Amino acid sequence: MSKFWSEFVHHLEPYVPGEQPKMARLVKLNTNENPYPPPPSVMQAIADATNDALRLYPDPDATALKEAIARHHGISSAQVFLGNGSDEVLAHLFMCFFRQPKPLLFPDISYSFYKVYCGLYDIDYRAVPLREDFSLALADYDANNGGIIFPNPNAPTGRLLPLADIQALLERNTETLVVVDEAYIDFGGESAIALVDRYPNLLVVQTLSKSRSLAGLRIGFAVGQAPLIEGLERIKNSFNSYPLDRLAIAAGVASFEDQAAFEDNCRRIIDSRESLVQALTQRGFSVLPSAANFVFATHAGHEGEALASALREQGVIVRHFKTPARIAPYLRISIGTEEQNEALLAALDQAL
Amino acid sequence: MSKFWSEFVHHLEPYVPGEQPKMARLVKLNTNENPYPPPPSVMQAIADATNDALRLYPDPDATALKEAIARHHGISSAQVFLGNGSDEVLAHLFMCFFRQPKPLLFPDISYSFYKVYCGLYDIDYRAVPLREDFSLALADYDANNGGIIFPNPNAPTGRLLPLADIQALLERNTETLVVVDEAYIDFGGESAIALVDRYPNLLVVQTLSKSRSLAGLRIGFAVGQAPLIEGLERIKNSFNSYPLDRLAIAAGVASFEDQAAFEDNCRRIIDSRESLVQALTQRGFSVLPSAANFVFATHAGHEGEALASALREQGVIVRHFKTPARIAPYLRISIGTEEQNEALLAALDQAL
Repeated sequence: MSKFWSEFVHHLEPYVPGEQPKMARLVKLNTNENPYPPPPSVMQAIADATNDALRLYPDPDATALKEAIARHHGISSAQVFLGNGSDEVLAHLFMCFFRQPKPLLFPDISYSFYKVYCGLYDIDYRAVPLREDFSLALADYDANNGGIIFPNPNAPTGRLLPLADIQALLERNTETLVVVDEAYIDFGGESAIALVDRYPNLLVVQTLSKSRSLAGLRIGFAVGQAPLIEGLERIKNSFNSYPLDRLAIAAGVASFEDQAAFEDNCRRIIDSRESLVQALTQRGFSVLPSAANFVFATHAGHEGEALASALREQGVIVRHFKTPARIAPYLRISIGTEEQNEALLAALDQAL
Repeated sequence: MSKFWSEFVHHLEPYVPGEQPKMARLVKLNTNENPYPPPPSVMQAIADATNDALRLYPDPDATALKEAIARHHGISSAQVFLGNGSDEVLAHLFMCFFRQPKPLLFPDISYSFYKVYCGLYDIDYRAVPLREDFSLALADYDANNGGIIFPNPNAPTGRLLPLADIQALLERNTETLVVVDEAYIDFGGESAIALVDRYPNLLVVQTLSKSRSLAGLRIGFAVGQAPLIEGLERIKNSFNSYPLDRLAIAAGVASFEDQAAFEDNCRRIIDSRESLVQALTQRGFSVLPSAANFVFATHAGHEGEALASALREQGVIVRHFKTPARIAPYLRISIGTEEQNEALLAALDQAL
């Protein structure tokens, strides 16, 4: 506490990221990172960019990366906004679009950073309950809103919405912005980027942290029609002219140019997920249907928190949320390599 | 424009960074970058960190870098706040400390991003005129303020304040925060970090972009007593948990561990500056005394804008500000390598 703080700082409740333990030899399945490294093409691009030009500012618009993303998604680079991780993209878009007289709507069980941004920017919000089975019912999203945001697949549940449901929402909710946060879309979903040209009120957010194995380099982006991107650029250029560094830009471009490595990586994780779901089910877990690189699972005979502790004692870290109460019985388990998944199952066999 | 923007976005006036031209073979003296590359030790640290761990999130606290900075400056790591360039650090501190009932004070001729942050966060401010000779008179800073910020050396003038003046301000202005923005301090000034332990209302901002040749990697930091840092961490953790990527952290640590390269680099630039000032003076320029890696110079016989254009035609880019009117006759010229400075002088000899 300090008398020099602006008044609102006293009431802020910051986000708490998944732990980044500094111990070696952990089986780290708690922050939904990709278990496989970036491909050699990306490593080479970083090595090539590690040169004397590091003394120079990066391109403030990161045009090369916008163009690579635009090519990959068949859109124009004026439809792409870049940020230092999708968290920065989300922060800017909350400020840019959601400071409205009416409340923002998002699911009651969702990415917990949304509430934090509302606190930071003094945005009124209403959390819309998921159904009993944790599925997201867009029909429940009241027209009387200042904006709508939800992850697809949702986190921490992993449940996917079909594109038709999102399209139906966009047809009915034309007066406010709808943001689809697709951090995990590449692990089995269909991206709403396909709808961007038809709906001026749609913004889609993605990240290179998950399906592109680049959590360590902090690159996220949003795709929408040019007037939405222009608003985001105004915020960004009033905040930090150069959010992406030279090495991140180089790595990002290389990642979008190596389509084969990307597809192979996603395929391996999807296959591992299906095997893991089967193995967990055999051990008495109920596992929600997942289209992400994690599963959300509960065991009738064991409390979530106790199980997480028992796993931790064996060097396996998974994520457990104490609140809200509805998800306290669950564990969120990131999909690891086959070896890591086997270590998880072995640890569970000790713990159960 | 878009109906989906929050109301305030329509009135934002973003910062315009110095141009990053994409042409080759330019003599680029417009954005105060360091003319010398980072040392081999930093390149090696980046190469070592370009490994499979890029798939993992960075340490959200970047503890290794905080500790390296703390060791260098003889402070504790709880006194260090890190950001994605000092622009991000400034953005967060404007939000954290300067949203006050009374106006923020800063020099009328100064880093032009300060006004932009005020626009972004709805902060009332008053610009305090520099003296006729562009020196900063802290005695003019009214006690009735919501905070004070100024660069030292000032930009774009390069003029330095002695530490005694800053200390006198801190003695008299105890109820609000004083921020000293030291982007250029290593080129001839004495850092106010030496005063941090004695003044709870002092925050000092520095960057690795200038004296450490790392503009391309985006690393800035603030130093102050722990309660100030705690406020900044609250903002940061409500905005983006991981602002510094793995390669930036590794490079930053290596930079602070290579004291010899750092001192050598600063020395070369200071020596070049003194030679350049002499050469410009011989050609009829008036040059303000500079403690930065740039000079601010005007020629009685030539308009600033026309000179900047004439240099540009010869492939030499310097920075010219059209406003405020008082500085329109001036050019801000970054110190280059000896070769670049000679190219500048040759181009001037054509233009004058």
